[in-house]
Amino acid sequence: MRADTRAEEAWARERRALAAVARGDAPADRYVHGGLVLNVYTGELYPAHVAIRGERVAYVGPRDDMVGPRTGVIDARGRTLVPGYIEPHAHPWNLVTPAALARHVLPLGTTAVVGDNLSCYQLCRAPGFARAMAALSRLPLRYYWMVRIEAQAQVPGEAAMFPLPALRRLLDAPEVVAVGETTRWPRVEAGEMSLLRRAALAALRGKRHEGHTAGAKPERLAAIAAAGVTSDHEPITADEARERMRQGIAVMLRQSSLRPDLAELVEPFAKSGSLGRLMLTTDGSTPAFIAEHGFVDNLLRVAMRQGIPPIEAYRMATLNPATYFGRDADLGGIAPGRYADINLLHDLEEPRPAAVIARGRLVAEGGALRVAVPEPDWARIFTPAATRFTRRWRLAPEDLALPSGPIPVIRLVSAVITTAEVRPMRADDLHLALVDRRGGWIATTAIAGLATDLDGLAATLSTDCEIVAAGRSRAAVARAVNRLLDRRGGVVVVDGDRIAFDLPLPVGGLMSRRPLPDVARAERELRALLVARGYPWHDPLFTLLFLTADFLPSVRMSSRGVWDVKRARVLRPSQPLAAGPR
Amino acid sequence: MRADTRAEEAWARERRALAAVARGDAPADRYVHGGLVLNVYTGELYPAHVAIRGERVAYVGPRDDMVGPRTGVIDARGRTLVPGYIEPHAHPWNLVTPAALARHVLPLGTTAVVGDNLSCYQLCRAPGFARAMAALSRLPLRYYWMVRIEAQAQVPGEAAMFPLPALRRLLDAPEVVAVGETTRWPRVEAGEMSLLRRAALAALRGKRHEGHTAGAKPERLAAIAAAGVTSDHEPITADEARERMRQGIAVMLRQSSLRPDLAELVEPFAKSGSLGRLMLTTDGSTPAFIAEHGFVDNLLRVAMRQGIPPIEAYRMATLNPATYFGRDADLGGIAPGRYADINLLHDLEEPRPAAVIARGRLVAEGGALRVAVPEPDWARIFTPAATRFTRRWRLAPEDLALPSGPIPVIRLVSAVITTAEVRPMRADDLHLALVDRRGGWIATTAIAGLATDLDGLAATLSTDCEIVAAGRSRAAVARAVNRLLDRRGGVVVVDGDRIAFDLPLPVGGLMSRRPLPDVARAERELRALLVARGYPWHDPLFTLLFLTADFLPSVRMSSRGVWDVKRARVLRPSQPLAAGPR
Repeated sequence: MRADTRAEEAWARERRALAAVARGDAPADRYVHGGLVLNVYTGELYPAHVAIRGERVAYVGPRDDMVGPRTGVIDARGRTLVPGYIEPHAHPWNLVTPAALARHVLPLGTTAVVGDNLSCYQLCRAPGFARAMAALSRLPLRYYWMVRIEAQAQVPGEAAMFPLPALRRLLDAPEVVAVGETTRWPRVEAGEMSLLRRAALAALRGKRHEGHTAGAKPERLAAIAAAGVTSDHEPITADEARERMRQGIAVMLRQSSLRPDLAELVEPFAKSGSLGRLMLTTDGSTPAFIAEHGFVDNLLRVAMRQGIPPIEAYRMATLNPATYFGRDADLGGIAPGRYADINLLHDLEEPRPAAVIARGRLVAEGGALRVAVPEPDWARIFTPAATRFTRRWRLAPEDLALPSGPIPVIRLVSAVITTAEVRPMRADDLHLALVDRRGGWIATTAIAGLATDLDGLAATLSTDCEIVAAGRSRAAVARAVNRLLDRRGGVVVVDGDRIAFDLPLPVGGLMSRRPLPDVARAERELRALLVARGYPWHDPLFTLLFLTADFLPSVRMSSRGVWDVKRARVLRPSQPLAAGPR
Repeated sequence: MRADTRAEEAWARERRALAAVARGDAPADRYVHGGLVLNVYTGELYPAHVAIRGERVAYVGPRDDMVGPRTGVIDARGRTLVPGYIEPHAHPWNLVTPAALARHVLPLGTTAVVGDNLSCYQLCRAPGFARAMAALSRLPLRYYWMVRIEAQAQVPGEAAMFPLPALRRLLDAPEVVAVGETTRWPRVEAGEMSLLRRAALAALRGKRHEGHTAGAKPERLAAIAAAGVTSDHEPITADEARERMRQGIAVMLRQSSLRPDLAELVEPFAKSGSLGRLMLTTDGSTPAFIAEHGFVDNLLRVAMRQGIPPIEAYRMATLNPATYFGRDADLGGIAPGRYADINLLHDLEEPRPAAVIARGRLVAEGGALRVAVPEPDWARIFTPAATRFTRRWRLAPEDLALPSGPIPVIRLVSAVITTAEVRPMRADDLHLALVDRRGGWIATTAIAGLATDLDGLAATLSTDCEIVAAGRSRAAVARAVNRLLDRRGGVVVVDGDRIAFDLPLPVGGLMSRRPLPDVARAERELRALLVARGYPWHDPLFTLLFLTADFLPSVRMSSRGVWDVKRARVLRPSQPLAAGPR
């Protein structure tokens, strides 16, 4: 049987079975009894039972003739049923694995996540990411994907990294709902053909193009919308949100660890009758932020606190993203035919659920996960070749040596924004390096405003998946880097010759194998430790991550060297590493 | 170059050009100057110019730096700009051609129509319909299609009429946005696999399944929704509309010649905050109704008269259908990247536009069409083989003879609803026949409640594309049928031996080649003539059309004979025709 015939047959059989349950001619697998249902389609709240067959809702209403002797009855008396929450824009390779994230957020009511594929794709390319996607497609939390069509930072061989045939195959996958996010928006505005040819793959399949227009002035948005960008999650004021909406761009209002802006963003929309194209997102929130505040449940809480009517707030986290991604026949409401992803709330005002049903099964109760969420076989995805820790090499302190004359010193003026100061390194500056995981090259300079009393820090976190390292002691920095090389990934802080902090990230150098709360504790510990050493900002992970993010002003580290973003030129070139591969 | 590469390249080039105009780096083709724009995304109304490049909007805003010496400027001062209207559910083979319909409704502001493919498909099958679709894809009015997966009425060889490979190819076409409408909803409710396998073709491509659940009780809707039906246009009360919305089914509120229900349907929703999944439709309105009342413009007028706020009314006819069909990146709003389909209104309260822009060009002004709307080459689509008028044959009066004993007499109890009376034919009954276009068979009985003083009537209008004929005089009926056979399609009324009315429908026996207002006059003339002969209902065209519609109660004509819908059995079998092919 051909693949399309098989899929058609499976679809038809599932629908036949659902209709039989709905008619009362076949028993439901599960029956959610006695709750109040929030109907996101009509805005009504009324008592109704929900009959489930397999992964989908078969029936919502007063009847019980589909309850058989083997139907599992879930008691929902006193509970309000709302659709499982959808996170429309997440980065699920951020210190914890997508499976670990799922384990943590399922009990908080998030049952579907549209994830960025970047970190995995950048290291493992299309075959590796496709393998991860296949494994993750079986989790109780439903992962959908946005697929990058350019790197987050300029990297050598970027075009070869995103070949059209591989992207075409990825875009054919039903789990892939968008391309993007496309961070270097000036390339979109300029109508660069190499980018647009890749964006076409989504448009021609009726899929989306996730934008990122941080800082774009209103008059620059038209070209971005004209070039086919369909959403944006970067507005940091309600005016910016409205400007993007005016251009027909769907807006995701953000509350993230880096930018907890939602209260201010959403409040002016409380009285608007035009919320149908608004969504809510946690974007790249770190484990510590998620552990402290929650996930989509937190977005709902903030939105309702700012006066968004509950029905509209829940729509912004359910029906609206489902509709935006063309998945409203599957997701976003409690109705026959939809996936049985349902949160049982104590009441509408408290979005953190008493119990969670996902893929038709009770997956969490009282905040505790009740089902297994298996990890993909990461060793087959992040192979040694993919993670690049393939050779034995060591960084020497002298590899970090800087000239005594003027160099482009990077100054942090916020957690992530930088300026350049061309001058000799001073005593209160730190050494800064971006180091090839394979040991082939190193880019060095000095940094001000990161910390004062930090001997050595190294991390395999950076948007280009290399090693970022900093510190006042070259020996301590080299020791931190070498510890990482032994560990094949992680974050290390060195005091003198002592390891003061060590978070292994063995999965691709990106992710721990530990649960989110454990990693969150490590993250808080790292932050406290850096603050104690003079780190003056609020989000050290994003400070490290974005030192290579050349879509941000004004000077960044790259494999080419210290990079002036606006002038698009190298201020100080990188060097081959003596310790590198021979 | 492969077809997908070509499409990607074309898409990218178009977007590059649009972005250049938006930046002010290239001249616009057209520039709509000085109007107020209704922004359906934000609900705002504000002054803005609109720059157009090719078929699409490149820019909306205050700038004019994209106006070059060859840019055509359209003066919109004093005008309000709203998106072109979308008719989400039409039957565009109804007495006039799709092109003639487009000529009439473009000046009324409708710039996109989702059309039923049934009549054309039933006669011409997939290759013929595909040819029609290709020709119609070049009109200034944009045709999209819903593709049937079953016949409107049971016909012999129905399964062979809808082969999966041909349907797969049709569903791959970007103009095809749905399957359906599926009128025999009990088959959906029952989960019939042959139907669901065909419905799968849409679902697996993210496309829609247009429902038709006339008369379905609330408790039967769940199985229909569970089986994957995504919309319904059949509610005749607001309660019926709400019941379907509750099931997650998107509802199209209808104002048609047969069912002018919109005022009653829409009024209870005036104060609702849940209008995002509501649309408006004219369904199968006849030319006379369209000529008298208008098209989507009329729906807007009725909705606003009932208290729907203008912004919501316009959304119901623009953004909502565009979103429902997954086309909001192309349609439904005035924003960069969207098709430049724009109505220039005197003011928001009057939806009939002062001027209409479609595919980026001014196509109508002051109600008059300004561009050519070419007809497809119908002779290549409705070939002699397809239209079935292939043989010379004649109907004889004796072919209509009925026995003197009891027969299943059909009684009309409304324009379209029937009951059966088993009794001998009476003097005030009419003869009724359904006749094979090829002359192979005839089904006969008597009918009451159609007219009293009608000698003979014949029409090539029926949902199964055969000939329906009625009258008190067998000779007059035979004469009417034979006139049709000469004409190869039409509607004929005979008084004695005189032709009293003759509307040729040479395109497939379905459509005139004349403009809509001319055909509307003929339709009114026919109605007056039938009323004068005792026709007591309001819509003779649908009376004739639906005499074969076996999704309606309770007895219908079919190729098998007189058909009891509920019991699914033949009450009086059809007969081979002596005059038929030898």
